[in-house]
Amino acid sequence: MNKKTKVNAAILIIGNEILSGRTQDTNTSTLAIWLNSIGVKVNEVRIVPDIEEKIIITLNILRKENDYVFTTGGIGPTHDDITAQSVSKAFKIKYEIHKEAYKILEKYYKQGEFNEGRQRMVWMPENAELILNPTSGAPGFSVENVFCLPGVPSILKSMLGGLKNKIVGGQPILSYTISLRTVESEIADSLTQVQNRNKDVEIGSYPFFHAGKLGVSIVLRSENKSKIDDCNSQILEFVNKKKIEVVDR
Amino acid sequence: MNKKTKVNAAILIIGNEILSGRTQDTNTSTLAIWLNSIGVKVNEVRIVPDIEEKIIITLNILRKENDYVFTTGGIGPTHDDITAQSVSKAFKIKYEIHKEAYKILEKYYKQGEFNEGRQRMVWMPENAELILNPTSGAPGFSVENVFCLPGVPSILKSMLGGLKNKIVGGQPILSYTISLRTVESEIADSLTQVQNRNKDVEIGSYPFFHAGKLGVSIVLRSENKSKIDDCNSQILEFVNKKKIEVVDR
Repeated sequence: MNKKTKVNAAILIIGNEILSGRTQDTNTSTLAIWLNSIGVKVNEVRIVPDIEEKIIITLNILRKENDYVFTTGGIGPTHDDITAQSVSKAFKIKYEIHKEAYKILEKYYKQGEFNEGRQRMVWMPENAELILNPTSGAPGFSVENVFCLPGVPSILKSMLGGLKNKIVGGQPILSYTISLRTVESEIADSLTQVQNRNKDVEIGSYPFFHAGKLGVSIVLRSENKSKIDDCNSQILEFVNKKKIEVVDR
Repeated sequence: MNKKTKVNAAILIIGNEILSGRTQDTNTSTLAIWLNSIGVKVNEVRIVPDIEEKIIITLNILRKENDYVFTTGGIGPTHDDITAQSVSKAFKIKYEIHKEAYKILEKYYKQGEFNEGRQRMVWMPENAELILNPTSGAPGFSVENVFCLPGVPSILKSMLGGLKNKIVGGQPILSYTISLRTVESEIADSLTQVQNRNKDVEIGSYPFFHAGKLGVSIVLRSENKSKIDDCNSQILEFVNKKKIEVVDR
């Protein structure tokens, strides 16, 4: 496959506990940073409840609009874990016992412990590819461009290594941050001019409050290092002219 | 207006910094907890980049499907702050200087400091209602059922109090948690039976690892306290039968 320059993804977070505010999602940031490092840009994130119809509709939109979709959550053994059955229905393929997953969990658990609840975790869409789980046995899976991962952050993290060969990224997205001792409104006009002259660089402006002082971090993102460098020089030009201090954060 | 029993909302997080993983969103959980407390259930969250077309399309879907929409981010003074103009276009209404907002910021800043950058923050959809900002002056705004808040978490939090009279919630959603010294697969079947007998209670099961020990928190959510109590008794019944320890987390 030829390497595309731009490769994008969507993240679909499945779980009532995120929508109720009980649990703070951290998987978006973990996945986004990892995806950027292999040249995949996250276009969109959606968080939906544990409702089959909602998961199916959302997944069918996202998988058509993006090169990759990563789902998190809903692949455990309890009644509210409905990701695998929802993915099967979204793709209109059979939901059945995955033999390889069955063998993995049969070996993972002590004799007699591979009970009915645990066996729920080996039901998957027919011919799903497994995503191995070095932390807690139960694998994730992928169907076409959809990759289904668990919701528990430490387990999700441990599974990313095994995904690397399955995701074909584009140019890694580079990022450079300049932190200034100023407030946004002092630099807004100059920054707009730089953005207008550098359409290929995504320039973000983020106020911060650190160690009792206000500041602004300017983040430059692009696949092209020399474009970031150009943009940086143009920013330093107005920063010097305005006598704004550049700070480390 | 009659109080509806079920009132729902969507949250639209606007910002490249969340999608790149640079910033961890915490506003979803802040808003969700606050909304639950006033009887509004969050149905869906979407995180989109600072791209006008994407914001407009997404907003127009969410505002039709939900009683309320809360946006966060993109209302500051820099070029990447495009929420107000996007909302204007989504509603097809004029984008103009909001006189009341202008007066507020003119008073807030010292003479000569209300510069062009800061004046960008008073451009809003025509006839927008202001959401006052006790922290940093620049107000948020609402148009019909869409409420636009800033992205900085501490500022967002400080503005919720002023919103209370504008949001008409339904029955507050009650939540009760039972934490057990067990693993999910030990209780999965019994829990499924309880869920099947109690369709009106949302039962969530969440594994945890705390102080070196594994456990599962079962979260019961409903508008109806006696239904939660019933459900709780049925859970304690199988918990006792299986001799599972109930723990405080």
